[in-house]
Order: sequence, then C-alpha cells, then structure tokens
Amino acid sequence: MLPGPTNVPERVMRAMITPTINHRSDDFVELYEDAVEKTKQVFQSSGDAVCLSASGTGAVEAGVINLIKKGDKVIIPVNGEFSGRLAQMLDWAGANVIKLETKPGQNASFEAVKEAFDNNKDVKAFYCVWNETSTGTMINYLDKIKNLTSRNDSYYVVDGVSIVGGEELQMDRWGIDVAMTGAQKAFAAPPGISPIVVNAKAKKYMNENPPKTMYFNLSRYFKYYEESKHTPFTPALPLLYAYREALDMILEEGLDKRIRRHRICSDALYSGLSTIGLTPFAKEDARSTVVVALNYLDGLEDKTFRNTLAQKFRVLVAGGFGNLKGKVFRVGCMGEVHRYHVMRTISAIGSTLEMMGYRTSSMNALKVAEEKLKVL
Amino acid sequence: MLPGPTNVPERVMRAMITPTINHRSDDFVELYEDAVEKTKQVFQSSGDAVCLSASGTGAVEAGVINLIKKGDKVIIPVNGEFSGRLAQMLDWAGANVIKLETKPGQNASFEAVKEAFDNNKDVKAFYCVWNETSTGTMINYLDKIKNLTSRNDSYYVVDGVSIVGGEELQMDRWGIDVAMTGAQKAFAAPPGISPIVVNAKAKKYMNENPPKTMYFNLSRYFKYYEESKHTPFTPALPLLYAYREALDMILEEGLDKRIRRHRICSDALYSGLSTIGLTPFAKEDARSTVVVALNYLDGLEDKTFRNTLAQKFRVLVAGGFGNLKGKVFRVGCMGEVHRYHVMRTISAIGSTLEMMGYRTSSMNALKVAEEKLKVL
Repeated sequence: MLPGPTNVPERVMRAMITPTINHRSDDFVELYEDAVEKTKQVFQSSGDAVCLSASGTGAVEAGVINLIKKGDKVIIPVNGEFSGRLAQMLDWAGANVIKLETKPGQNASFEAVKEAFDNNKDVKAFYCVWNETSTGTMINYLDKIKNLTSRNDSYYVVDGVSIVGGEELQMDRWGIDVAMTGAQKAFAAPPGISPIVVNAKAKKYMNENPPKTMYFNLSRYFKYYEESKHTPFTPALPLLYAYREALDMILEEGLDKRIRRHRICSDALYSGLSTIGLTPFAKEDARSTVVVALNYLDGLEDKTFRNTLAQKFRVLVAGGFGNLKGKVFRVGCMGEVHRYHVMRTISAIGSTLEMMGYRTSSMNALKVAEEKLKVL
Repeated sequence: MLPGPTNVPERVMRAMITPTINHRSDDFVELYEDAVEKTKQVFQSSGDAVCLSASGTGAVEAGVINLIKKGDKVIIPVNGEFSGRLAQMLDWAGANVIKLETKPGQNASFEAVKEAFDNNKDVKAFYCVWNETSTGTMINYLDKIKNLTSRNDSYYVVDGVSIVGGEELQMDRWGIDVAMTGAQKAFAAPPGISPIVVNAKAKKYMNENPPKTMYFNLSRYFKYYEESKHTPFTPALPLLYAYREALDMILEEGLDKRIRRHRICSDALYSGLSTIGLTPFAKEDARSTVVVALNYLDGLEDKTFRNTLAQKFRVLVAGGFGNLKGKVFRVGCMGEVHRYHVMRTISAIGSTLEMMGYRTSSMNALKVAEEKLKVL
C-alpha cells in the first residue's frame, strides 16, 4: 500500500522477460508506437507522447527545461515536497517564479490562482503538482484553469506524477499543454519509465526553442519519432515492455471504471480509518483519491508502527516526508488497489494500533468501509 | 551480436522478477549498496559510484554538467557520432571546446593530445570517448593521459559507455577522475541503468559547485547516499536487480579473465572476417576489442545483408551510424561473447555473402578463428 512504487501485476512483471531486441529495429517500432499511442489515450490527448527512461522527476524536469527560458514569469501553487521541488526547477531554469504558498495539507484556492493571473498579465505559464504525494492533497480545479491561461495564451503544465491513470485527466478538453507521470504509480508498472505528453502548441515551441541539454531534450525525441519511430537514446527495453502491458490492462479495464475504482477505494479508506480514530492530514476539500495521508495519534511512534504493520501483517505504508517525518503516514491507493486491499489495510492498521495499546473501533471501521465498497 | 543492447543471460533477466520493494527501506539499501560497491570494483576505483536510472547518454551528460562551467577549456578527441555528441554537450555546458578531430576509423595520437596540452596550459579537463561505438575504434593510451593532466591538476573524464567491463579500466591507477558506462553493453545487463564513478577530487568539486538541474545533479545523489544509502529519485528497481546480478557474474568470472575473453574473441572476429574478405573499418592501431566495424564489399546492400543474416541465421548485427550508413556494419563483441558466438557469426556472415553471390573463403576463416580461440 505504498504511494509508489506500487504492486505490479504478475502479467506486467512477466512482460519484462522478453529477449533483448535491437532498439533500431521493426520489433522496437511495434513496441514503442503502441506504448506511445496508448499513453495518449490515458492522458486523453491528441498530442505527442514521449516515454522517457527515467523516474518521474526526470519527466517533470523535461517539462520545465523545454518550455521555460530566463525571465519567464510562472505561477505555481506550492504546498509540499514535490511542488517545492518543481518550483526549484523552475527557478533554476531562470523563471521568475510566483509561488502561491499554502500550508501542507491545503491547496491554493482557484480564486487565489485567478488573483495571481489578474496581477500578472504577462505570465508565460501555469505549473502545478496535481497530486502532492508528500501530503495526500490533490488539486480539484484542473478543468477551470483554461479560463485563465486562455486570456494570454499562456502555457498550462500539469505534473501528474502520482495520479494519472487513477484520476480523470482530460488534457485536450481542459486545455493542458504538457503533462507527465511515472509508471510506478497509478499505472502499476515498475519504476523507470515516465511518459510526458505534449500538445501541438507546446511541441512547436519546444522544437523552435530546444534547450541546450541532451537527455531530456524533447525536440530530439520528436525528431527521432517522426523520422523512424525510434528514441534518440537506448531505452530501458524490459521496462517498456512492462509499461505497455500495464497500459493494456488500464485500457482493458476501461479508464472510467478504473478511476471510479480509485475513488471508491480512497473513500472507503478515508471513512474506515477515520472511524478507527485516525484523522486525515489533508483538509477535506483537498484530499487526494490516490494517496491517503493520516496524522499519527499522540505518542504513536512512526518506525514501531510501520514496522509492526509490515512484519506482522505484511502491509507496507510510507512515512512522512521532510518536516512531516514522524507526524503522518501515507497509504497509497493506486494501481491495482481493490476491495481486498482496502479491507486488509484497515484491519491490519486497527490490529497494529491495538497491539500497541490503543483502543480502536476496528469492527465499525470495517463495516463503514464495506458499505462504501459495495458499489464497486 | 549487436554492439548493445547485448544478450542478457537468463539469470540476469530472472533477477528482474522480484516483488516491488520500497525504495526507502532496508531491502533497498542492501541492494543498492551492493550494486555501488561492485560497480567500483569493476571500475577499479576507490571513489563513489552512482547508478543512474537512465541510458548511457544520461550518465555522460551527468559527467559534463557536474564538472564544466561557462568558459572552461576542455580538450577532446572527436572521430565519430558519440565523441561528437560529447563535444556538443561540452559546448552546451559553456565550455571552450578544443576538438582534436580525426577521420572516422582513426584516433587522435597521444602526441596530438600532448601537443594540445602543451598549447593550452590553462585546460580544465580532458574528456574522451574511450570506445567510439559508431566506428569500432578505441583509444589505447588511457594510462598515459595522467602525465598530462597532472601538470596543472586538470580533470580527466572517460566516457566508457560501450566498453567498461570488456576492457581494462584502472580508474585510480590511471588517474581518471570520472568515468561512466551503460549496463546494456559489456556488462550484459538490460539497458536503463548507467553507472558513473567519481573520485574524491571530482566529488569535492561537484559538491561545491552543483549544477542548477535536478535529475543528473550528482551532489544530490552523494548526499542521499551518505545520509541513508538511498537515491534521491525512485530508481528503476527491476533493472537494478538485474544490474547487480550482472555485476555478480562479472566478478565470479573474474575481471582479468573476462577482459582476456573479449580480447581473444575480437581478435578471432577480426582475423576470421578478414579472411572471408571483409576489411575492418578502423585503422589497425585503433581497433576496438568490443565493437568490430567492417566495410561493406562493393555492391553489398546493407538492408538485404543484415536482413538475410537475421532471418536465415538469427544473427543480429548493426548498420552504420550517420554518414557511415550503408558503408559499414558493426558486430558487437561484448558481454557474454564466447567461442560459439564468434564461430557462428563468422559462419553465418560467410554463408550470407555466398547466398548473395559473393565468393568467400569461409572454411579458412573458421580455421583461422578457431586457432585464435584455442587459448580461451
């Protein structure tokens, strides 16, 4: 139940065991083109997709250095580790970064974003971390940003690293120019492939203004793809096979059904764990449907709790990040998550708390969760 | 018989099928520390190793952007696609690049390098592509460069992407500050992990002058490793398991024996294929022991030749790169290469040529190769 890397279905793991092929061959073209096209389906984009052999941070960095030049004005909400990291990358790229900072667990409101746009008519781009994995918060107004970026045709970039494939993303419809994720999150593939999707407008800009770097230079990827459907550098072939298999599983389940499953499971986790006596870290209107962060009870020690949970019940959850270390723990609700995972997790957390001397209402918690899961 | 990605032993492939672990756990520390320490053994370095989740080009770029600042003077021999690419990256990093250009198939002589050092007393670094995969040439004076870099304590960086693990590299002894490779070459692991090894002097510089980028920022990797033996970003876990297994196989065989095997096999390939009537592309004193590039015979069409070889005999070789497309083909001699591969390849190439109407002396070629392979 980690918020990434998540459990990988055996079918996806097995796909890695494919004899080595030449990445300059027709076999590769068949594999890569398929992965690219299916990625676009999940992002609901008619643009271009590049499957980078890197972690999600690599794809996010590509989304920064290919679009931002010295002095560009950028608006970004910041409320945790990953949005802070993105703001840092924007700053390094030379941007004039306007940070909309809120406390961890809260999101900048749409009104605050609108105000920033009102005050900065010359903004070049809006960047946001859709799902702040470090705190379990999620921005829920992605569909409304277009009203602001359309004013001066500024760019709209969504870092969707831990959430694409688990929540709805309509790139074309919502006017998003660039978005990316990591395969090891809601796609339930192994880590190491990170897709970035770019619409025609952003692609044109990137091709006309390529960065002076090599590995994350997207115009180079576009050129190779157009010429031969190859990648410029040797890709992580076994991971690409796994990634394509994971995409097949997503599309076989159906995007809508998959997103509904994530929502129902996270709803059951929030309800069940609240009934046990744990409080969610994120404010109610900002709660993520793929990462459930919970405050530790008074005196509940992080390492002891998580070790007991892992050793006695084989349930892995993550600790807090940065300042939140020891204060919260995080339950992933992504990828393969289903009834069984939710019930087992609530049961194991309840039992662990009882073993550590807390009184909980586990049975009620399970009933509450079961009720929520009925519609699955 | 590709010059990468090379065949991956089943034992290494199987290592990928390990259930997903938390990359912030003791399980990960055990895996990663082991991979790091064994990487250092292969590079014969007492420095620090970072296993990047990226292709070899990513590791090479890390070797540039962490060491080179605007205006730094750098000497680099250029004789093909990959050395050209490295010179490009140095230029992008703002370096004053002194290119020692030679024709493809030839190397700048040690005397030419010495002259460049004589004429540029303020040089900051010497970079070289040890093995130019695009042309099958190899620099054979790596051990002598220290005499030049020691004059003003300049840095010495070796791009060993296609050759480390197949040829001798004594980082410490030869005074090399930074070196890197890709797992899918002479290590015989799948592509996607690329180690970079940095000695104490270069590490100190990198920590004091970190680049304004995220994914290839080595000081960040050093910091995480010192604090917790973690990596800053989610690593490509299945590939790390495979990589570690490949390192085990290298060390079980023994580095010396492995290098000797590569040398004997390439010697047999050069002798055998020359006897068939094919001429090596590289000049004799510049021939690589891990990539054998051969000129096409007059009228021999690249695609037909390679397709016949692949379809009738299941032997994969690579075409030429850039300007050399259609003029040469390249046989990898790396990783698992042994007697059987050499004999089968010579036999299959001879038969393909005969099927295409050329007269060859295949039987003699096999005898010549067999003689060379006897000492294995």
